[in-house]
Amino acid sequence: MPSKVITFGPSQPLQLESGKSISPVTIAYQTYGTLNAKKSNAIFICHALTGDQYVVEDNPTTNKPGWWKNLVGEGKPIDTNKYFIICSNVIGGCMGTTGPSSINPKTNKPYALDFPMITINDMIKTQIMLLDYLEIDKVLSVIGGSMGGMQVLEWMTSYPNRIQSAIPIATSAYHSSQNIAFNEVGRQAIMADPEWHEGLYLDKKKRPAKGLSVARMTAHITYLSEVALEEKFGRNFQDRLSPTFTFDADFQVESYLRHQGSNFVDRFDANSYLYLTRSMDYFDLITENNGVLANAFKDLKSHVCIISFTGDWLFPTSESRRIVHALNASGANVSFVDIESNKGHDAFLLDEPNMFNAIEGFLKAVESKNC
Amino acid sequence: MPSKVITFGPSQPLQLESGKSISPVTIAYQTYGTLNAKKSNAIFICHALTGDQYVVEDNPTTNKPGWWKNLVGEGKPIDTNKYFIICSNVIGGCMGTTGPSSINPKTNKPYALDFPMITINDMIKTQIMLLDYLEIDKVLSVIGGSMGGMQVLEWMTSYPNRIQSAIPIATSAYHSSQNIAFNEVGRQAIMADPEWHEGLYLDKKKRPAKGLSVARMTAHITYLSEVALEEKFGRNFQDRLSPTFTFDADFQVESYLRHQGSNFVDRFDANSYLYLTRSMDYFDLITENNGVLANAFKDLKSHVCIISFTGDWLFPTSESRRIVHALNASGANVSFVDIESNKGHDAFLLDEPNMFNAIEGFLKAVESKNC
Repeated sequence: MPSKVITFGPSQPLQLESGKSISPVTIAYQTYGTLNAKKSNAIFICHALTGDQYVVEDNPTTNKPGWWKNLVGEGKPIDTNKYFIICSNVIGGCMGTTGPSSINPKTNKPYALDFPMITINDMIKTQIMLLDYLEIDKVLSVIGGSMGGMQVLEWMTSYPNRIQSAIPIATSAYHSSQNIAFNEVGRQAIMADPEWHEGLYLDKKKRPAKGLSVARMTAHITYLSEVALEEKFGRNFQDRLSPTFTFDADFQVESYLRHQGSNFVDRFDANSYLYLTRSMDYFDLITENNGVLANAFKDLKSHVCIISFTGDWLFPTSESRRIVHALNASGANVSFVDIESNKGHDAFLLDEPNMFNAIEGFLKAVESKNC
Repeated sequence: MPSKVITFGPSQPLQLESGKSISPVTIAYQTYGTLNAKKSNAIFICHALTGDQYVVEDNPTTNKPGWWKNLVGEGKPIDTNKYFIICSNVIGGCMGTTGPSSINPKTNKPYALDFPMITINDMIKTQIMLLDYLEIDKVLSVIGGSMGGMQVLEWMTSYPNRIQSAIPIATSAYHSSQNIAFNEVGRQAIMADPEWHEGLYLDKKKRPAKGLSVARMTAHITYLSEVALEEKFGRNFQDRLSPTFTFDADFQVESYLRHQGSNFVDRFDANSYLYLTRSMDYFDLITENNGVLANAFKDLKSHVCIISFTGDWLFPTSESRRIVHALNASGANVSFVDIESNKGHDAFLLDEPNMFNAIEGFLKAVESKNC
């Protein structure tokens, strides 16, 4: 099933946080389930850095199952028989929404680095445009993990009246120094690839595949915990019993990372990777609120369920706890679910019954309160 | 002061663990202090991945101070008025000892990837050759951190009769899956650089500077703790007050990493980086001893002082503790000093009074026991 698509023309340019604007803006999105007559059963899902709008069904690019199909669907914790689900590809992305690989109307060539920098706040602006287009005033919940969680936090601070509840998962109120560092390594790997051509690779019918692959490999290490790597691969050799004393992928973990890198190149645009990692780096609700995170949530009336994982070292529990403290300080209605897991940051994408139960229960409670 | 150099000719080839051999073998080394008449005051220092033999005096390549000059020197915890210090550049390195950038006598060109794979054990073989050349039967101590610590462990298992004591710092009995993964990313970054030319860059008067720089940036993140990055850089901007909304190094941490990357390229050979990271990946005293690490130390009579740092996530305290347990199980005489520090893995290179006191005290105790 191809994405639904809505294009906002010259009369509705997207005004960006940087001061620049984009027009036209196309948003590619998917919906699942049926919007009820009261329009009170909509749930907006925000995807992560390399995610997309294909939450449930097979992804048409990769032919892999939808990234949250264990959580969302008929009879699933987020039950599409009950809820109307919306997920759109973020602005700056590469799955149908306008991004650096889109055609720049001024040049009739791909934007490349002429695409203006986008922020997490800009992503939400497009999501609000979509919500307005769908004539939905308020969603029952907004939910997402990692960069998706940043988006949920941004909804909570910028559009508190458009949400009845929010579920930020495995995320942070700002991107840490270490996380900026890992993103920067990824960007430098892409830009170091001569096939990147200062961003103009599409024009030249090239792709910075090696650089993007190295970027993905680096990031992938941060998505897993050390324990997960040790349990999954340890020091096991790949298809051999002893070392080759070469630079071949002797170890399973090397083979796995190379595979992750080369697969990623087939499905993701390198410039989108630059822009989206940068938007995460810029995310900082603390500085924006003069060091007092609670101020970010002063207008928030929604119920919030914060979920973190003990084995996540990219967005550790301490960062979720900081959000919980701020929400409590602002008088918000907040639940905090810190899930014991050794799977690392990727836990939010996996079959995690504790997460599923928390989300299902929280949504039911929100509905029953009809807040 | 240029390095001392000793070359072992065709009659003394280095037999490698891979089954291959290297000849001739040149070892570049430095000594500090004076060997006493009884030849009982020698201390062998093993350097880390990107270290070298310039422990005390300014490095002639970088003009930067010796990497352990706070620890070693006149009146320092390892006092050169008292001890005779030896440090040699490892086999496979690029500071004078034979490595992949050395001339292959068969081709009269740099070895490049024709250089045979070397292991930590091979490094110690060359160090023993140097010790024999210096006519020193037994060193008072062998000491090193990180890859240097792996070498110390290898001395303990392979040449227990050549050491009175050993001080492995911030190291592990095997390279973990996560650490192999980070090394593999670095190698892939180098190999992805077209200026690497399948290793033949010296022939072509080129250098894979961008790839090596990305490799160093990745590694550098792992040398610091998250806390250290947060305290040192946080989300501070570099030379500006607000974001540029570009891919410039807006954040101090980005600027710092780029600087670390580009500096490294001037002092280190890319192929050496490939070979030495690989030697670390292959290091595994546990598998070599059929899963029982204690067996690695069954012939060890030396005193051992294991040092780790609480903020080190590359070689965490748990890995040192495993060595301590094995040493205790083998009946060895072992002290364990786990130092409270938030500086990360790099702590072993820094001015750490607790480490200095531990080393100074331990060496005095070893001397007094005259074991």
